[in-house]
Amino acid sequence: MRRSIATVSLSGSLADKLTAIGAAGFDGVEIFENDLVSSDMAPEDVRRRAADLGLAIELYQPFRDFEAVPPDRLAASLRRAEHKFAVMERLGATRLLVCSNVSPAAVDDDELAAEQLRLLAERAAEHGIRVAYEALAWGRHVNDVMHAWRIVRAADHPALGLCLDSFHILARDADPYPVETIPGEKIFFLQLADAPSLPMDVLYWSRHYRCFPGQGDLDVAGLVRHVLRTGYAGPLSLEVFNDIFRQAAAMRTARDAMRSLIALEERVGSPAAPAGSAVPPRPVVPSGFAFAELAVPEKAEVSGVLGALGFVRTGTHRGKPVELWEQGEARVLLNSGAPDGADGPVLNAIGLETPDPAASVKRAEALLSPVLPRLRDPDDAPLDAVAAPDGTELFFCRTARPDHLSWTADFSKNRRDAASAVSAAGAAGEITHIDHIALTQPWHHLDEASLFYRSVLGLRPHESLELPDPYGLLRSRAMSTEDGRVRMALNVAYVGAHDGGPDVGWQHVALASRDIAATARRIRAAGHEPLAVPGNYYDDLESRHDLGAERHRLLRELGLLYDRDEHGEFLHFYTVTTGRVFFEVVQRVGGYRGYGAVNAPVRLAAQHARPSRPG
Amino acid sequence: MRRSIATVSLSGSLADKLTAIGAAGFDGVEIFENDLVSSDMAPEDVRRRAADLGLAIELYQPFRDFEAVPPDRLAASLRRAEHKFAVMERLGATRLLVCSNVSPAAVDDDELAAEQLRLLAERAAEHGIRVAYEALAWGRHVNDVMHAWRIVRAADHPALGLCLDSFHILARDADPYPVETIPGEKIFFLQLADAPSLPMDVLYWSRHYRCFPGQGDLDVAGLVRHVLRTGYAGPLSLEVFNDIFRQAAAMRTARDAMRSLIALEERVGSPAAPAGSAVPPRPVVPSGFAFAELAVPEKAEVSGVLGALGFVRTGTHRGKPVELWEQGEARVLLNSGAPDGADGPVLNAIGLETPDPAASVKRAEALLSPVLPRLRDPDDAPLDAVAAPDGTELFFCRTARPDHLSWTADFSKNRRDAASAVSAAGAAGEITHIDHIALTQPWHHLDEASLFYRSVLGLRPHESLELPDPYGLLRSRAMSTEDGRVRMALNVAYVGAHDGGPDVGWQHVALASRDIAATARRIRAAGHEPLAVPGNYYDDLESRHDLGAERHRLLRELGLLYDRDEHGEFLHFYTVTTGRVFFEVVQRVGGYRGYGAVNAPVRLAAQHARPSRPG
Repeated sequence: MRRSIATVSLSGSLADKLTAIGAAGFDGVEIFENDLVSSDMAPEDVRRRAADLGLAIELYQPFRDFEAVPPDRLAASLRRAEHKFAVMERLGATRLLVCSNVSPAAVDDDELAAEQLRLLAERAAEHGIRVAYEALAWGRHVNDVMHAWRIVRAADHPALGLCLDSFHILARDADPYPVETIPGEKIFFLQLADAPSLPMDVLYWSRHYRCFPGQGDLDVAGLVRHVLRTGYAGPLSLEVFNDIFRQAAAMRTARDAMRSLIALEERVGSPAAPAGSAVPPRPVVPSGFAFAELAVPEKAEVSGVLGALGFVRTGTHRGKPVELWEQGEARVLLNSGAPDGADGPVLNAIGLETPDPAASVKRAEALLSPVLPRLRDPDDAPLDAVAAPDGTELFFCRTARPDHLSWTADFSKNRRDAASAVSAAGAAGEITHIDHIALTQPWHHLDEASLFYRSVLGLRPHESLELPDPYGLLRSRAMSTEDGRVRMALNVAYVGAHDGGPDVGWQHVALASRDIAATARRIRAAGHEPLAVPGNYYDDLESRHDLGAERHRLLRELGLLYDRDEHGEFLHFYTVTTGRVFFEVVQRVGGYRGYGAVNAPVRLAAQHARPSRPG
Repeated sequence: MRRSIATVSLSGSLADKLTAIGAAGFDGVEIFENDLVSSDMAPEDVRRRAADLGLAIELYQPFRDFEAVPPDRLAASLRRAEHKFAVMERLGATRLLVCSNVSPAAVDDDELAAEQLRLLAERAAEHGIRVAYEALAWGRHVNDVMHAWRIVRAADHPALGLCLDSFHILARDADPYPVETIPGEKIFFLQLADAPSLPMDVLYWSRHYRCFPGQGDLDVAGLVRHVLRTGYAGPLSLEVFNDIFRQAAAMRTARDAMRSLIALEERVGSPAAPAGSAVPPRPVVPSGFAFAELAVPEKAEVSGVLGALGFVRTGTHRGKPVELWEQGEARVLLNSGAPDGADGPVLNAIGLETPDPAASVKRAEALLSPVLPRLRDPDDAPLDAVAAPDGTELFFCRTARPDHLSWTADFSKNRRDAASAVSAAGAAGEITHIDHIALTQPWHHLDEASLFYRSVLGLRPHESLELPDPYGLLRSRAMSTEDGRVRMALNVAYVGAHDGGPDVGWQHVALASRDIAATARRIRAAGHEPLAVPGNYYDDLESRHDLGAERHRLLRELGLLYDRDEHGEFLHFYTVTTGRVFFEVVQRVGGYRGYGAVNAPVRLAAQHARPSRPG
């Protein structure tokens, strides 16, 4: 199918938008009138530039408040339309979006609406233009797609059809099934947008919070399936109004948009997806974390923390200043050769176990992720890596499997472990694996990052949460594989806007312990105090849960935080932040599914009270 | 009345919040439970610190989901309450806020609610604690203050009363009048918050968008009048949840909060306002702009722009490198001695004509505005000045009036004007005065700034607007005197968040012309092209308005923008930005009341296309 996007979805001048849309590989574009009106490009220039970029001008939009006006206003509206037809001829655009009237002057009279739209279509046809009528979700009298269709059918003119918009249909919780009864040739255009569930007026929601399909909570793919069953063969066109995208770099947003369309076409699936849609290879769902790599300064204090948690250094990279620390299946690489780590640890790479690393990279590449060239020694194991939207490197690994040369082979065994294979035999052993990794995202990239992890790795998004921070608010969204073996939390910190406010681009690695009390005692015995939890927290916990005096005493003594859900219990504690990184130790008891979000404000307050250490 | 504020209204640790609340001069504080739970201060420490700061702990809050639970849940709730009573005893707090149950487990049974609340009050009374029951606007069964009152009356216990909250009452559009029927002694507490009108769910609105009274659209003063008529004599206590205040500096927010309370008490007015409320001197409403002062580099290009607009340099300050430029009553000072201006003009001061400059300063000071010390020559005219929240200096002036030494007396007349008094006789004369001044505010200070101009100067806020910028969104709120002689526009730019995005802290001075066509011709003849308006704008204008071919031709030829409202017409154009500053020339025809906001996107696009010049 042809892929198109409305200029309003991107930031910048009209010229910038067209360039970005062309560069992202779209086939067509909707020209949003306000973008043209404020541009110094004449319509003829826009037409030429679009042609040079291989972009069809699919739609000119919007034409507002036309139908069902009292007869004395009709002449002025037709005059306005003639002016727009003239602009469209200069643009070379042959399709005009007319959205349903929102004016208080509009009359609730479908016959009048049909009659006037027919008149408009007759005039349009004289210019070779077709009119696509759209029911806005907040239209004064017409706000439902099937209502718009009754009017279009009554008007009965070949140059008059419908524009369908996923937002307007799905935002009103309307059943999209009846759309299938509309003949495909009367659907002139299909606009697509998603949106997160937010409890607000639909107009306000639409103007500020739309996002690309797959980034929100609407079933856009389901709607597209219904529309394709009608025989619709026009473009899939993205139209998003979003306060964040308005401020983001256009090239980046356009690529994000294209990724969304590719993933959408995949979800729409065959047989509805017509020929020509290049469906990417299926996601290769990761089966666990292979490692977390921290860029660190030389003589990093963090190695002391790892040691205190019971990790042992099991190897050193043969060609680079990278140490491998292990405990159970939890592996942490400390890379003192990366410049990022000079001021203290930064999480710069994540290793993911996948059944087929090369296929994982192909999938990521088909979804427009930058594949990282790895400068390697010819003897090194192959490294299949891509960059996530925030720059974190993702390595696809098969650790110590017979069918694939393992990345661990690049690490020479340490002398004290010489007897064993590269293993964590000498480690404490309470910690078994990485439970989850939490990354703070730049605030204007959260939607992009969440779509990336969802589409590239096949992770499933969980509920979005708002967590109070003493200096602001964190938005947090966890994503995981179905089996929970890979869990990520993406956070955005709206924190400390004022001069001297804190910087909180924190990242953390949560380690699963099978005996958190033992791990908590171990770290203390090694002289590393975990992040302090205030006594008031325990007073409050006792008021909320009756866990028995002994258990409450133990939690307080060991500084453990507690949560529970209907599936089980969660115990956790944190290490003090060094650089941008801290560790969390967690123990899931029963089938607890969350991340202890209820305790995040306590953790954040303690972290602000005890600023990050340098090393 | 006692002035109080909830800790949740401010950012930072509990210790930081208490310090800021004390410094701003409050009498008391509500301890928000989450702030205590995440604090490393023991309740006894909080009690001591509050006492040291002279703060009474007025309320401990909130206690949730207590009343009207099935009997089997009551024991756990009472157990929870006993824990909280213990904490309150340690805090020295004697009033507990219980908000209406939001849990799905709550039963719709007023008798049960009354019975259980009575039980809670009995237990509380044993600890010397009183319970203030509040109807949350989103309470499951109790969401209306009069409903809460019926339950409290039925429970009939001296330790049980009501907490009233202006947000919960006004957000539901309930008539506040019946509040007067509640006996004052049964109103245990009064919480105050305002909010801007936003079309969203009341819980979402409350959690993110509350603001201090006078910053939003609710009639908080009206509600307080009703409450005071009951005989209520407790504190006025601010309780605000606001995404922006969460991120702002606590000291500043606390001062803003106190300004809001002072202004509120004034609006509530006598006789209701009890003795002890220090009402500030009445606002001295400004009658016009005396001048706009720009900090400029030496040899500022902006003087060329002023000359081209028909201004003449009429004087030079006797002691400082400041030039006075005049045309009609429009005066611009170019100050090349201020370091701010080194990189190009910055608007750093505004002169306002007032009937009594000293009284204006007293008013500003009573509302906690910093009064500026002026280092002056003993011969100079007195300068009465305060700092607005964004740092702009406001001078209160009486220009060339016999009753007051005029600031213009500090300027020696230029030689070519030696014959005249300090006057603009040599100027072109189309420009008559400053129509308005628009200031871009830091995004986290808009509410503070709008309250400042409203309370200190008595300006009236107009509707908040959202204006699309090619790289984001501007929020804009105009404020004016009743007679329109002083008009300000406060803008916040949510623009260009990405690396390399534009910086748009623009400020502008709009000059009223009685013949904008002549001014437009004059500036061109002087070799200064105004900001270019695209041809597409005029094509669109012709489609929207039929002004006749001749008028459309003239607008296009002169590059004038056009708007109209039901009162009249508006013509305007802009100069190219230098530094942070540009000029607008406007002509109001008839009684047009707006600011040409409809044309702002066209202006912004043109400004981005033509970046600011250095001089």
